[in-house]
Amino acid sequence: MKRRELIGAAGLGIAALGLSACQQEEPAAAPAPAEKPQRFNWKMVTAWPKNFPALGTGAQRFADIVTRMSGGRLNIKVFAGGELVPPLEVFDAVARGTAEIGHGAAYYWKGKVPAATFFTTVPFGLSAQEMNAWLHKGGGQALWDEAYAPFGVKPFACGNSGMQMGGWFNKRIDKVEDLAGLKIRMPGLGGEVLTKLGATPVIMPGSEIFTALQTGAIDATEWIGPYNDQAFGLHKAASYYYAPGWQEPQAVLELLINQAALDQLPDDLAAIVVEAARSCNADMLDDFTFHNIQALQQLKNEGVEIAQYPEDVIAALKTASEQVLDEFAAQSDLGSRIWASMKAFREQASDYSALTEKALYNWR
Amino acid sequence: MKRRELIGAAGLGIAALGLSACQQEEPAAAPAPAEKPQRFNWKMVTAWPKNFPALGTGAQRFADIVTRMSGGRLNIKVFAGGELVPPLEVFDAVARGTAEIGHGAAYYWKGKVPAATFFTTVPFGLSAQEMNAWLHKGGGQALWDEAYAPFGVKPFACGNSGMQMGGWFNKRIDKVEDLAGLKIRMPGLGGEVLTKLGATPVIMPGSEIFTALQTGAIDATEWIGPYNDQAFGLHKAASYYYAPGWQEPQAVLELLINQAALDQLPDDLAAIVVEAARSCNADMLDDFTFHNIQALQQLKNEGVEIAQYPEDVIAALKTASEQVLDEFAAQSDLGSRIWASMKAFREQASDYSALTEKALYNWR
Repeated sequence: MKRRELIGAAGLGIAALGLSACQQEEPAAAPAPAEKPQRFNWKMVTAWPKNFPALGTGAQRFADIVTRMSGGRLNIKVFAGGELVPPLEVFDAVARGTAEIGHGAAYYWKGKVPAATFFTTVPFGLSAQEMNAWLHKGGGQALWDEAYAPFGVKPFACGNSGMQMGGWFNKRIDKVEDLAGLKIRMPGLGGEVLTKLGATPVIMPGSEIFTALQTGAIDATEWIGPYNDQAFGLHKAASYYYAPGWQEPQAVLELLINQAALDQLPDDLAAIVVEAARSCNADMLDDFTFHNIQALQQLKNEGVEIAQYPEDVIAALKTASEQVLDEFAAQSDLGSRIWASMKAFREQASDYSALTEKALYNWR
Repeated sequence: MKRRELIGAAGLGIAALGLSACQQEEPAAAPAPAEKPQRFNWKMVTAWPKNFPALGTGAQRFADIVTRMSGGRLNIKVFAGGELVPPLEVFDAVARGTAEIGHGAAYYWKGKVPAATFFTTVPFGLSAQEMNAWLHKGGGQALWDEAYAPFGVKPFACGNSGMQMGGWFNKRIDKVEDLAGLKIRMPGLGGEVLTKLGATPVIMPGSEIFTALQTGAIDATEWIGPYNDQAFGLHKAASYYYAPGWQEPQAVLELLINQAALDQLPDDLAAIVVEAARSCNADMLDDFTFHNIQALQQLKNEGVEIAQYPEDVIAALKTASEQVLDEFAAQSDLGSRIWASMKAFREQASDYSALTEKALYNWR
């Protein structure tokens, strides 16, 4: 995709909390009567531009395999963000039944369900593999269900970005003090962490980032990872590509299903929906992993300078992150329970990763 | 599961190349006529004892979700290793059509397809996340298909152990010279690597490992990871639990389908089989990840001493591994092409992991 196309769709992207939701929602159509028994036509609203790499294509893959597995008995029509409802209103549209199904990211609805943020990503949190293990085997899914049950919405993990990069900078960060006054586009908890260290997080729609970086209106921005960052052309507006993406060590993409619609499906179609989500959860991570690895090489070949946060900066970010997370979790009983569960698993997981994959990456 | 039950089923386990295949295969039954159009009953032969943690339960999960998604139109009956054919004859049984489908690990059939070994694991190779990306997005699947096409068998990734541990030792490894003369049960390429460093790899069935370790007939053994190792009771027969599992940084479990049987399925059922494999590929990794993390804590709480290979030992193992892999790959055109593709991806992936997950594990 060309940058112009990307910019045209305001605020795309996995970390695009700052996007402006300017389109009006269309009036809800009366539900069409089923063509014949056991045939279902669902609308799927998404937070992504049509066929946006990995995210939009991942949502479309879900619809495609459900249609194929059901022999056409469950057809899902995918709507890009803004086509039926604005990107940030996907949750509401599914809760209301305007659409039976949606695809987005839990932290987009933090205004409605603050604790949902934990189900996308937290700074210095779990890796993609660990997050999937916690969700599916460690009690995470039950807490997620609990968070959305009051809205009649059932969530599933349906995609993962893997670990992201730290972002694009026009100012070097050589010591903790360099963060003071840094104008950086970083939405969400990552932005709150930077605030504690004196930076000035800026919220702006995706469409304005490139120019803001180029003109010096901001010093830095995070986006996603090499695959999407390269497509967005951010390396043409910034001098340094920082690592690691401490603010998003993975990010879960979310399938939302209207519970009443799900309950109307016969058992075989319900099972197809659930397993399709699980398949697509894996496929999108494979997609991001492969293309991020390729794109990083291409960016390096084009002369992009990779920079790494110095040790004392990372240590300060880690300390501030734990404060932000503890304070954020304490705002609700549900948030406290989610963070307690996730934090305990992270501690045990860190013991295991230190003996296994960390050693592999050190020695390979 | 109790150790006795585990031992009873000779040679179970993901790394059990040394198992004795002592049962006779039953004569192939004539295919039963379909009960009515569009109903299929398949037999699934596996290399695992029934409901063996993660492996046997993972194979059963595949059968269960296919039955559910197909509304009972495709029923799969799972046979434990030895029930219909011996564990190491799963590939042959599927190729012949004795069973329509099988579950095992590619390196079990290295006598028939030597290059298949690459599709399970290689020392110091890809992580689980990277392996899935290479298989599904990086050309790995096409090479795997090519390896099995002459036998009329179609392979799919259907489970992953994640990174394993280095094994159980009654002798400390403090320097490279300590490997000389070490009697260690380690099948496959890992054993060949140790041979280069003067060790004496021993091949024995799973059923004999515990006693051999206890009596000093062997100094050490590798098995799988904390989840299965704990169930097997190996901590009761060895003093040190070594990390990392350099010999198996991940291991793919494999679904094998008789191509002619797959071709007879209508499109919806074929899609259900393919996506069920993808779902189960992810679910088993979640299962291993969660339970390995839990079991490591429990083993530590029970006083198990975790030991790490010294840096010079790991470096020597890495050098020997690359020699073994290059020599092994050079034995066939297909092997050369598989290793060239995987090795190139590993190099790029290492650049990315160094900036991302390695940093996460360092700083979290």
